[in-house]
Amino acid sequence: MGHLGKQTITYKTPPVITCAYSSVGPKETQGPMGKYFDHHCKDELLGEDTWEKAEARLVQTTIQGLLDRAHKVPNDIQYIFAGDLQNQVIASTFGIKDFNIPFFGLFGACSTMGESMCLASMAVAGGMADLVMAGTSSHNCAAEKQFRYPLEYAGQRTETQTWTATASGFVLISRCGEGPQITAITPGKIVDLGMTDAFNMGAAMAPAAVDTILTHLEDTNQKPSDFDAIITGDLGNCGIDIAIDVAKRLGTDLSDVLMDCGKLMYDDERQKTNCGASGCGCSASIFTGYFYKELLNRNLKKILLVPTGALMSQGSTQQGNTIPGIAHAVCIEMK
Amino acid sequence: MGHLGKQTITYKTPPVITCAYSSVGPKETQGPMGKYFDHHCKDELLGEDTWEKAEARLVQTTIQGLLDRAHKVPNDIQYIFAGDLQNQVIASTFGIKDFNIPFFGLFGACSTMGESMCLASMAVAGGMADLVMAGTSSHNCAAEKQFRYPLEYAGQRTETQTWTATASGFVLISRCGEGPQITAITPGKIVDLGMTDAFNMGAAMAPAAVDTILTHLEDTNQKPSDFDAIITGDLGNCGIDIAIDVAKRLGTDLSDVLMDCGKLMYDDERQKTNCGASGCGCSASIFTGYFYKELLNRNLKKILLVPTGALMSQGSTQQGNTIPGIAHAVCIEMK
Repeated sequence: MGHLGKQTITYKTPPVITCAYSSVGPKETQGPMGKYFDHHCKDELLGEDTWEKAEARLVQTTIQGLLDRAHKVPNDIQYIFAGDLQNQVIASTFGIKDFNIPFFGLFGACSTMGESMCLASMAVAGGMADLVMAGTSSHNCAAEKQFRYPLEYAGQRTETQTWTATASGFVLISRCGEGPQITAITPGKIVDLGMTDAFNMGAAMAPAAVDTILTHLEDTNQKPSDFDAIITGDLGNCGIDIAIDVAKRLGTDLSDVLMDCGKLMYDDERQKTNCGASGCGCSASIFTGYFYKELLNRNLKKILLVPTGALMSQGSTQQGNTIPGIAHAVCIEMK
Repeated sequence: MGHLGKQTITYKTPPVITCAYSSVGPKETQGPMGKYFDHHCKDELLGEDTWEKAEARLVQTTIQGLLDRAHKVPNDIQYIFAGDLQNQVIASTFGIKDFNIPFFGLFGACSTMGESMCLASMAVAGGMADLVMAGTSSHNCAAEKQFRYPLEYAGQRTETQTWTATASGFVLISRCGEGPQITAITPGKIVDLGMTDAFNMGAAMAPAAVDTILTHLEDTNQKPSDFDAIITGDLGNCGIDIAIDVAKRLGTDLSDVLMDCGKLMYDDERQKTNCGASGCGCSASIFTGYFYKELLNRNLKKILLVPTGALMSQGSTQQGNTIPGIAHAVCIEMK
């Protein structure tokens, strides 16, 4: 396990993503990526009586779907790495508890898919486990209620605001088997340029995304064109432009290769989502639903997945704190 | 890196805890463990204007104290594994961000010291990093305000209620060096026996503690007397009795060897803390402040540290959910 730079780890025996599964809500189903997702929920409540419980059900549905697809039972999985946006990552807790799989609870805001895949691949590559699971979720109504306003309040949405996706994605990461491999990771630093606008998360996260991407390129001595795509999590339409601009000022042109899951999720004009999608489930579902299959089909050979998170709570912004960002990069190759 | 059972990992080349540091508030200073802690804060605000910011300052103070003691600078640390009880682990975020160390945000409720030491030791033992940091914090006033009532409300405390400690503990975990070694870990499962009383966390966590301890003993083919002490996180005075009782019913007598950080922290009668201490910082500060030194001095040779967490949010209990528990075990030996 050589680690090249301080921050990037390259795997000599790369862990394999042997299976992936995504579940989404109705709005995500109606978007341009809708057909790629594995499970489409009929409504936002999934048979539960609260949004919070609905998100836990979404997690449970996704994990069960993944197990079924891989012909595995919970007892086959050694550890599960997961988290979500709800206070005290309670959607993961209640979605996971009945599977009886040893659980590492994570909080990386919307970067959680990157964090979970980093830690899960470290466990496998380090010889600690043969088969683990990593994933995350978000729920539009639970997140809006917690971070902004309850839906019933019908607060006006700003032009820079993203739409929290009701979505979940989980992967199986194995020591051996067929599928795309995780060949390197760059866990991110907290980057704080002093942003304070909770309705412009893309701007808050863009500097962290650029920091992690440029660090990965430098640590591994690569250039953007060495990747078929560099895919950020949920910068959205404003955030991705800021990221390209910031990278250009720092001497790297990402414009030909940078994509963003938040930009892919919705048809903003038709679906009135303003500035794209956000939420942990955004990059998780678009990776597991779309990019994973593009890798399997060899339409893509090598991607850098960079889920991005805005580190804030309702209380932290009310107390006048800034909104720092974080981004974790996972290099995934189909050989 | 042989892993014996599914759940327990034993390290062939055990990572070393080369340094540890603890910071506590005034009430913890006045308790029976007071003299062992490394840094004593004069008041609960640490110069800040909110409890939440005070906890971030507590984290920053502890990390800086640890770096100074170890003669290290932030750039020497490859990754930091940390979390806390605040919504979106915001105390860790703001306490850590200015150190510019790549950050894995965790949420394991009060089991976070166990979770962070598990993941940090896995990173080092797996050859991913040479030197990492792990730790956590809690703050009485921030936690009471968030989970129960603001202090000003002066709500009556129940007999089974624990006192959230204002405390933080961080460790350095290294691939080589002198000090106690992490020889094995057992990451825990979520255990839910249907407890719903948010004022009796000990009872909610005791089954999880027993599950993890018995799994560790079984996976490693050991008995309780193979340890100088088995130390749970924050079961408190009621919870530890329940744990001993549950273990006895399952055929294992832990009564001679089980200790609890929550029981050690305060003089309950004098300090009116009712049922002991809780909070992520409880086991973190008592391990780093007291047990780490007892290991260094070889008064203890082998302990099993089992931080315990109650997985709940204010919303989850209000929506009628149970309070599941989780506990992560870390075997630490001085050779």
